[in-house]
Amino acid sequence: MRTVQLGDRVRFVETDMMGVVHHSNHFRWFEMGRVEFLRQAGIELLDLMGDGIVFPISDVECKYLIPARFDDEIVIEAQLPELSRVKLVFHYRILRPRTEEVLAVGRTISVFTNREGRIIRLPQTYMERLESFVAVQE
Amino acid sequence: MRTVQLGDRVRFVETDMMGVVHHSNHFRWFEMGRVEFLRQAGIELLDLMGDGIVFPISDVECKYLIPARFDDEIVIEAQLPELSRVKLVFHYRILRPRTEEVLAVGRTISVFTNREGRIIRLPQTYMERLESFVAVQE
Amino acid sequence: MRTVQLGDRVRFVETDMMGVVHHSNHFRWFEMGRVEFLRQAGIELLDLMGDGIVFPISDVECKYLIPARFDDEIVIEAQLPELSRVKLVFHYRILRPRTEEVLAVGRTISVFTNREGRIIRLPQTYMERLESFVAVQE
Amino acid sequence: MRTVQLGDRVRFVETDMMGVVHHSNHFRWFEMGRVEFLRQAGIELLDLMGDGIVFPISDVECKYLIPARFDDEIVIEAQLPELSRVKLVFHYRILRPRTEEVLAVGRTISVFTNREGRIIRLPQTYMERLESFVAVQE
Repeated sequence: MRTVQLGDRVRFVETDMMGVVHHSNHFRWFEMGRVEFLRQAGIELLDLMGDGIVFPISDVECKYLIPARFDDEIVIEAQLPELSRVKLVFHYRILRPRTEEVLAVGRTISVFTNREGRIIRLPQTYMERLESFVAVQE
Repeated sequence: MRTVQLGDRVRFVETDMMGVVHHSNHFRWFEMGRVEFLRQAGIELLDLMGDGIVFPISDVECKYLIPARFDDEIVIEAQLPELSRVKLVFHYRILRPRTEEVLAVGRTISVFTNREGRIIRLPQTYMERLESFVAVQE
Repeated sequence: MRTVQLGDRVRFVETDMMGVVHHSNHFRWFEMGRVEFLRQAGIELLDLMGDGIVFPISDVECKYLIPARFDDEIVIEAQLPELSRVKLVFHYRILRPRTEEVLAVGRTISVFTNREGRIIRLPQTYMERLESFVAVQE
Repeated sequence: MRTVQLGDRVRFVETDMMGVVHHSNHFRWFEMGRVEFLRQAGIELLDLMGDGIVFPISDVECKYLIPARFDDEIVIEAQLPELSRVKLVFHYRILRPRTEEVLAVGRTISVFTNREGRIIRLPQTYMERLESFVAVQE
């Protein structure tokens, strides 16, 4: 399956008084992976939004395996195991290459809606880009 | 089951360019509900931490039903349906009283560890407070 | 001068690994004070925005005197010492009533623009509400 | 003067319902520039903290010139025009290379303290690294 990776470094502000990254930040990292996945598939979020299509999250989950720490170099990994014209299911992993560890795994479900929040179907042109991007053997 | 409620108002900074609250913020609200639940049970997080006990999140999930919007008055609701000396499972709801709607429902699992991240058992004194708080008929 | 106060409690996520509140959060508190000030003056941000008026920040400053800590009950205090139809200058203090300390003082300058970012003059109806609110002797 | 640059891309979560980056985030970008500046000077924040030295911010200011937008590639630029063993004054610029614009300029003052918050002097070894890094002609 197509896997997109994005490198980043843990920001100081992402830590909390436990000395590790606050668990809410992982969803912000997942989002960066999702945006990058779509970009590599030829879909810019700003174009989608220009076409009146938004992309709200309906479900999320995350399992935290190892705390991420300040200044860690991390890799955000995104896959798209399920896609249809009404829904995208992304899977994610947060990796720390230095220690070869998986820090967290997660999943989000997004639906397509118009600006008024009514569910719509992703236009065929976008759908084709996604399908062909996902299908390519790596 | 014992239910703890906490009122709050959506901050401007919690919105994103979709015009609604970014989905990562719900976990920050859940946390506020969790802290308040523990406080009402007689457990201050700062006391726990002073005893060398920390409380990392190992699993979270959230289902988003209706977008929260800037300036909405919300109620954060927390329950503790499962507790043991190694793990707490909290359930949450985010309500918008004005429209009598449930905006989101979620769940977190926390484990008890020492400062080095080793899993420990919650001391009996804290456990008793939690159990008697949860048990009280409302 | 008219002073508006708003109570809040420091969130866990607002701390960083130094064990105190990250300095960027004070601007989020100032914003809550600013929104509350305007609300008490009869101006809802959502109404302004509905009239196509936005309110970007052009300058900020903050002096940090004493660290805010997790679970501290704080008071956010806002004043509007300078107002005109093109610019509002707010002053803020963050107080910790328990210790009777001032934790931080700050200032923001906002200008009025339309949605395209062009500077505009605040309509007279809003201006009058602000002026009469500020003028009232407390 | 020595200038350190760091590239980044605006995150979706950094925007607010005005459609542009919330002004509090610039201080988080400044921090990334500060950390990178110190790293290139041979000073890791984690080492400083391991030596019991912390580095709280005492004063900040920022002037916002042009809004940053989602997905913008930005450059965070940091300089250290004033340094002594008790205080560091950093200057920052946020640039958007695509449009060759300066989006914001800012300044922070940090003091050195021990873990109890008492002001201390930066040990000579760190001071020398900073001074020689700053002094090098670019």
